[in-house]
Order: sequence, then C-alpha cells, then structure tokens
Amino acid sequence: MKPLLVTMGDAAGIGPETIVNAFNGRHLQGCVVVGDVDVLRRAGSRITARIDHPAELVDVPPGALPVLVPAGLPPGLSGLALGQVDGRNGAAAARCIEAAVRWVQAGEAAAIVTAPIHKEALAAAGVGFPGHTEMLQALAAPPGEALPPVRMMLANEELRVVLVTIHVSLRKAIEQLDFDAVLQTLHITQRAAAAWGQARPRIAVAGLNPHAGEGGLFGDEERLFIGPAVQAARQAGLDATGPFAPDTVFMRARRGEFDVVVAMTHDHGLIPVKYLGVEQGVNVTLGLPFVRTSPDHGTAFDIAGQGRADASSLVAAVRMARRLVAAGRADGL
Amino acid sequence: MKPLLVTMGDAAGIGPETIVNAFNGRHLQGCVVVGDVDVLRRAGSRITARIDHPAELVDVPPGALPVLVPAGLPPGLSGLALGQVDGRNGAAAARCIEAAVRWVQAGEAAAIVTAPIHKEALAAAGVGFPGHTEMLQALAAPPGEALPPVRMMLANEELRVVLVTIHVSLRKAIEQLDFDAVLQTLHITQRAAAAWGQARPRIAVAGLNPHAGEGGLFGDEERLFIGPAVQAARQAGLDATGPFAPDTVFMRARRGEFDVVVAMTHDHGLIPVKYLGVEQGVNVTLGLPFVRTSPDHGTAFDIAGQGRADASSLVAAVRMARRLVAAGRADGL
Repeated sequence: MKPLLVTMGDAAGIGPETIVNAFNGRHLQGCVVVGDVDVLRRAGSRITARIDHPAELVDVPPGALPVLVPAGLPPGLSGLALGQVDGRNGAAAARCIEAAVRWVQAGEAAAIVTAPIHKEALAAAGVGFPGHTEMLQALAAPPGEALPPVRMMLANEELRVVLVTIHVSLRKAIEQLDFDAVLQTLHITQRAAAAWGQARPRIAVAGLNPHAGEGGLFGDEERLFIGPAVQAARQAGLDATGPFAPDTVFMRARRGEFDVVVAMTHDHGLIPVKYLGVEQGVNVTLGLPFVRTSPDHGTAFDIAGQGRADASSLVAAVRMARRLVAAGRADGL
Repeated sequence: MKPLLVTMGDAAGIGPETIVNAFNGRHLQGCVVVGDVDVLRRAGSRITARIDHPAELVDVPPGALPVLVPAGLPPGLSGLALGQVDGRNGAAAARCIEAAVRWVQAGEAAAIVTAPIHKEALAAAGVGFPGHTEMLQALAAPPGEALPPVRMMLANEELRVVLVTIHVSLRKAIEQLDFDAVLQTLHITQRAAAAWGQARPRIAVAGLNPHAGEGGLFGDEERLFIGPAVQAARQAGLDATGPFAPDTVFMRARRGEFDVVVAMTHDHGLIPVKYLGVEQGVNVTLGLPFVRTSPDHGTAFDIAGQGRADASSLVAAVRMARRLVAAGRADGL
C-alpha cells in the first residue's frame, strides 16, 4: 500500500502532539506526516526523518518520524505561542493540505488523514475556506470544473452517519434541505459504501421533525421531499428506507438494523455518534476522488501542549483510512 | 406511602399487557391500576380485585391485581379489536386519566404512572388533547386559572433531559423558542430537581445550532436569548451553564459533568436518551402539582396482544415515580 499522508493541522493546537503520541504508540505504520519538523519536535518527537517524496518512507529507519515538508512553510513556527490564533499557523496548515492533495492526486500517496485546523487562523492567513471539507473539495476539482458534491460522514465502531447539511444555522439547514439534497446524499452514500465493502448498504433516512412529522401534524418536509427522495433512490436500486423518527433510528442502526443513517442536520447526526465518547469518532469526507479521514475533534487550544491530548480519534482515523484504501475502492469515495 | 395509580392507557395497545407483565414480575407493589377489569383479564391477568377507593389496596390479597374502575367506562371494551383505533378506547383512556387526577388531587394517591394512549383514538372520542401532558396540564389547573407551565423530562439511568419545545415541527420549534421559554424551563428544572433530591442541580443548556452557533456564524439564537437566559438563571442562583454545542453536551452529562441537560428541541434531547435503548427511558412531566411518569414508548398497535411487549420502561416509570414521591417533595414537581 502507498503511504498515508497525515497533515499536522494548526501548529498551535493539539494536532502535532496527537500525531507524535500516535507515532510513539506505533499506530502510524505506513504513514508520512506532512508538516514542520521543528513543530513536531516541540510536540515531543525524538527522532525525525525529513523526506522529499512519500516513496522515501521505505528508507526511514524504524523509530524515526517521517516528515514531508511542503514548500512555502512560514519560518519560525515552533517559536509561536501554543493555543493562540496566528495567521502563520493558518498558512502552514493550508500548505500542508495543498501538498498532501497534490501527492495523492499524483498517485504517490494512498489517502489523507488531517489533524485539526483552526478556522480563524486560516482566515488570518487569507484562506477563505471555513474548514477542511470545503478546502479539499476545491482542491480536488479540476480547474474550471464544478466542485464535486461531498458529504460528511461520522463513524465509530457501531454507527455510521452521513449528513445532508452541516455548518450552517438550524434555520438555514432547514432552508437548504430539498429533494435533490437528500437524493444526492443517498447516492453519495451508496457509492461510498462500496469502499467499506458493502455493495448495497441498508441506508436508513432520518426525518427532520419529531416523529418524522407524525403524518404532517409536526411538519411536512417528510411528506414533501424526504419521503419522495427515498422512493426515488429505491427506484434507482438503493436499499434506502424511511423517513424514520429521528429519536429512534440511530438506536435501531446501532442494534444492527441498518448499515448507515442519513441525517438531515448536523446535530441529529452527531449527537448519537459522539454520545458514547468523542475519542471513538472518525470524520470521513464522502464524494472526493480520494480517501480522506480526520479525527472527530478540533484544535483544543485550551489544552494544547499540556500533555493531555488524546490521540485515539486520530488513531481511529488512520485505521479507517487504511481500511478504506485496503478495500481497494478509493474511487468510490 | 399512599398508592401509586397506573392508568391502563389505550386498551387496543400494549399498555394493559405491560401492566399485567409488570404485576406478574412483582414490580407493581403499592400500585393500583385504573382501568377496565375485562381488558386487564384479556391482557393475561389471572386474578383481579376490583376496588372503589385507593385506600382499599391494603385489603387486596397478594397475587390479585387491584383495579380501580372509573365511572363512565364504555361497555364491551374487551370485545374491541386489538391494534385498531377506536373512539371507545380513547374515551376509556380519558376516563382513567381523569379519575386518577381526581384521586391524586384529593390526596388519596401519591402519583400517576400512565400507560400509553393513542392520539387518534382520543380524537375519535372527542377529546381534543394531543397527548397526556396537555391533558394533565388542563386537569391540574383550578377552574378559571391559567394552565401551569409544564415541561417534558426524559430520563434513564445515566441521562436526564428537559425539553423546551416538544410536539411541533422543527420550524415551529425554532419560532417558539425565546428568552422566557428557556428561562422558565430552567426554573421548572430547578424546582423539579428538589424532588429527586438535588437542591442545586448542575444544569447544562444545549444550544440550538451546530457548535452552539460558533460565535454567531452558524445562527444567533445562542447570543440573542439562550445565553442571556442562562445568565439570568445564574443571577437567580441556579447552577446553569452553557449554551454548549449540542453534539457533545449529552456525552459530557453522561460522563457526570452535569446532572441534567436542557435541550431546545424534541430530537436533540431524545436522540441521546433513546440511543442506548428505548426500554430504559422514563418520561416525567415537570411542573404539575403532582408526580407523573410514563414509559418512553407508544401504544405499539403493531405488536399489541402478541406477547412481545416489553414492560421494562413501565417498570422504570413506576420506580421513578416511587423515588420522586419518596423524596417527599412531590410539590416541587
């Protein structure tokens, strides 16, 4: 398998130390970190091996952290304060992501695992994307072509959830929902499932309203377009069912009735995924032309550099990326 | 302790059989069923003891199900089909609830545990309330006085959630939310907590929007009134904090950081309570002048009479009612 690329994220957050902890725990076999050598040293890395191409990973001695340093990193990053927004850290995070996408698009790396970035630091660097997903979407699109439709999937050992809407107010999320948004999510989910080894996943669709609208009494989105989108997906051959009452469909999926749940809003989907513990969750971007996963937490500026950061979500993200690549169907993602 | 009253609910649903199963499992000590003797016999009760006053419970031999039959029950209920909407079952369910409220208001019973009713059957009987909560609220109000503000709490062994809005569309729920609705919920929660033995519960308030609005970027309800309501509650001496991101606050409460979470919408609150299994959940109405609990499920017409109904939520509801009454602060609810 080609190397997995792990981007270091915002240097002022917990990204670098979770990477070093995961490496020390021997969880980063086959991975190359894309980042700044001094930042990773500050985060506790004892031996680093700077490489210039992912393929050089084979020459890195065991025990040395392989680091691919992108061109154009701002100097002196390891001298900046931890836990503080700084445009230089935002710029560095962006350079790492851009480099990782170029390597994976060139076929030299198998997948990208991204440590958390900070939106304000990105903005301070003049990078206008609100997050990884939008940035990767833009980087993945050939010049002049439309952006590929992507969706966020959150997964842990017992539940997979794909979100129709994400980082907007709940009011705006309701406005964004329509037949096309739901149906497109179902098709993206179906294609992605091939990558985790299921040709025909049992997709449950959660409603938007209490009791999935209670026959129109508590809202009509289910009748107007969620139900029809499920029907259209079924006619296209998908094993999609619903809309189901949001308050019980996740429990039913956890018990094994469904393989994946499509949720209309950010929190309907993320509340159950995170309920049993954030550290188990992995974020997967569906719809990109390559595999991309990330831990299910942010930069955690409040605890950065204190030795308290938990690497288990990053480790789970690496494991998930490896599994998706191994399934040999990265093109489905 | 005075008897607990258990209303039989809609006779065509699983209410009667869960009551009989709970009784046979010796989980209804100190309880009197308010219902129809023949319906309970059909549900599997071997020996029933019809009584005319809750205090007669002491004379009922062990092994006999004590049944208080309200005046005005329609005849022939046990001859009606299971799993079918029928106005006569709706009328009977309403009579049982009315009688139970009268007994408890008269000081002859300690609390009410309600088996599930069916909204359409109630409507067919000309009873215009959409559910128990609204009906109990109306029955509890002295004639001519304003209805007491009530809130729905869902609780299981590891999580308690109080809802600001309940049975309306998500769009309407957002419109119903304001400073007063949130602050009133906090005060009702505070008063109710006395009844479960906590004079100053740690109340966490979940936001409405993703990341609790991300500083206004994903919605402004947190800034405009949820945050200010939390501040007003704190100034009144409550241990209220938030608004917190909805996707992690329930996990934090489950881990012990908070005693109860106030949720803005039905499904934000119920998804985590139900995620680990519906049968553990109990519904508690806060704000009534008496203790009222119920199981966390509906009439389940699809499995009524098939011997498949699970009584554990009813048992948990009885246990919760007993605990709340024992705390001796029923007036706080």
